[in-house]
Amino acid sequence: MKKAPLHIIKIGGAVLENAEKRAAFLASFAQLEGNKLLVHGGGRQATDLGEKMGLETRMIEGRRITDDQYIDVVTMVYGGLINKQLVAHLQALGCNALGLTGADGSVITSLKRSIRNGIDYGWVGDPQTVNVELITDLLTFNLTPVFAPLTHDGAGHLLNTNADTIASTLAIALSARFDVQLVYAFELDGVLTDIQQPDSLIHKINPASYEKLKAQGKVTDGMIPKLDNAFTAIAQGVSSVKIVKYTHIGQLHSVDFQHYTHISE
Amino acid sequence: MKKAPLHIIKIGGAVLENAEKRAAFLASFAQLEGNKLLVHGGGRQATDLGEKMGLETRMIEGRRITDDQYIDVVTMVYGGLINKQLVAHLQALGCNALGLTGADGSVITSLKRSIRNGIDYGWVGDPQTVNVELITDLLTFNLTPVFAPLTHDGAGHLLNTNADTIASTLAIALSARFDVQLVYAFELDGVLTDIQQPDSLIHKINPASYEKLKAQGKVTDGMIPKLDNAFTAIAQGVSSVKIVKYTHIGQLHSVDFQHYTHISE
Repeated sequence: MKKAPLHIIKIGGAVLENAEKRAAFLASFAQLEGNKLLVHGGGRQATDLGEKMGLETRMIEGRRITDDQYIDVVTMVYGGLINKQLVAHLQALGCNALGLTGADGSVITSLKRSIRNGIDYGWVGDPQTVNVELITDLLTFNLTPVFAPLTHDGAGHLLNTNADTIASTLAIALSARFDVQLVYAFELDGVLTDIQQPDSLIHKINPASYEKLKAQGKVTDGMIPKLDNAFTAIAQGVSSVKIVKYTHIGQLHSVDFQHYTHISE
Repeated sequence: MKKAPLHIIKIGGAVLENAEKRAAFLASFAQLEGNKLLVHGGGRQATDLGEKMGLETRMIEGRRITDDQYIDVVTMVYGGLINKQLVAHLQALGCNALGLTGADGSVITSLKRSIRNGIDYGWVGDPQTVNVELITDLLTFNLTPVFAPLTHDGAGHLLNTNADTIASTLAIALSARFDVQLVYAFELDGVLTDIQQPDSLIHKINPASYEKLKAQGKVTDGMIPKLDNAFTAIAQGVSSVKIVKYTHIGQLHSVDFQHYTHISE
């Protein structure tokens, strides 16, 4: 039997923290037809709240050290503020959104990251299981799940989990039931070899060209974990992975759509 | 056809902000068999966060003035911190909890309270509609919905909504499908005529005896809105309303259970 299509869209914190960009993204996302779900970030807003509360932010290679106080901050900002604002906004656009963390319906469980090379990331989790049944049921009711980047360990602890990783984990798990199109939406048209030159957009990238671009220094820091996640997803059954500008989500069905980078095997 | 039983339990912020009491309540709640859902408060924790952020708390007759900054605070504390901690804790106890605000699946819409007698409560909402269909579907999947005291106006705004009111609103709406038992759980055994005397517990209260107790000054401030909500619920089809100690939720099915106040018509 042919699998039904499902779009999994990841949107980053930089778009969300700007009210105009957020509205433009959500308007575009609401237009996308068929089964869809959203995964959001929000790291900068968590840092802002932490600073207002007088907490120190500690990052290692772009990853937050999530101590006892910071897990509460990210639970408030990701699970509360951003998630519920997005859900209320989507409802106003006629999109029947429902917010989730991994703890809700135990939809994503994680393993707390152990101390490696002397680094203790604290309450950070790497995904272990996905409740495909529940997500499928929610989609059947025409709901649009909106995932905050939080999971749980099944023993009562919430865990901070990278949003790109949540998106690829969901994409891989849901490929058992759906023809999954995974889309990383952000501020640029796609992967650019020169961030100052919009016409340096790479239309297609595969593992061989990726290695070459990395060696030439044409793919930069922030894009590397995103592309690594993308290639992992493709290798594990996800039908398609794209990196797309946040205003173009509504036109993903268009055949002649050129404003994105397509990741292939 | 006989309606299936459904327990709607409201738990107040005072129990939740004490880690031991919270754990005792959740252990008791997890033991309760059959369809159930939880509604939680959390006002004191919101005030704590607001103060850490340097915001001024303004209350009128126990109700919070929810300005632009405070709606974000309650969204973080109710929708994020408390809701997700409760969900993760219940999951660890084998109860398949799923957290909701009124915006999620548009499960409760509200009307923003208009300015009355010169008082502008800000982003506060009075419930208008309940998505009975979705709640029924979630219960059918053996999920336990956990409601934060937040609703939405359908136009993109979250609204702060009293948790007792959410509990009675859900109880009334769900009575169309279920044999609803509404339970207000708190720190005492039930309604006491003398808060210092546990043996002053009122086992049954009806509108006539309630008026008498109010006239005698034996029912105090905090209990009055709770009882008003309770009588409204009974009058509108809810099968039973009880006010119960938070540790006794798991034994609600016991016939000889005496530690509560039963509200009757």
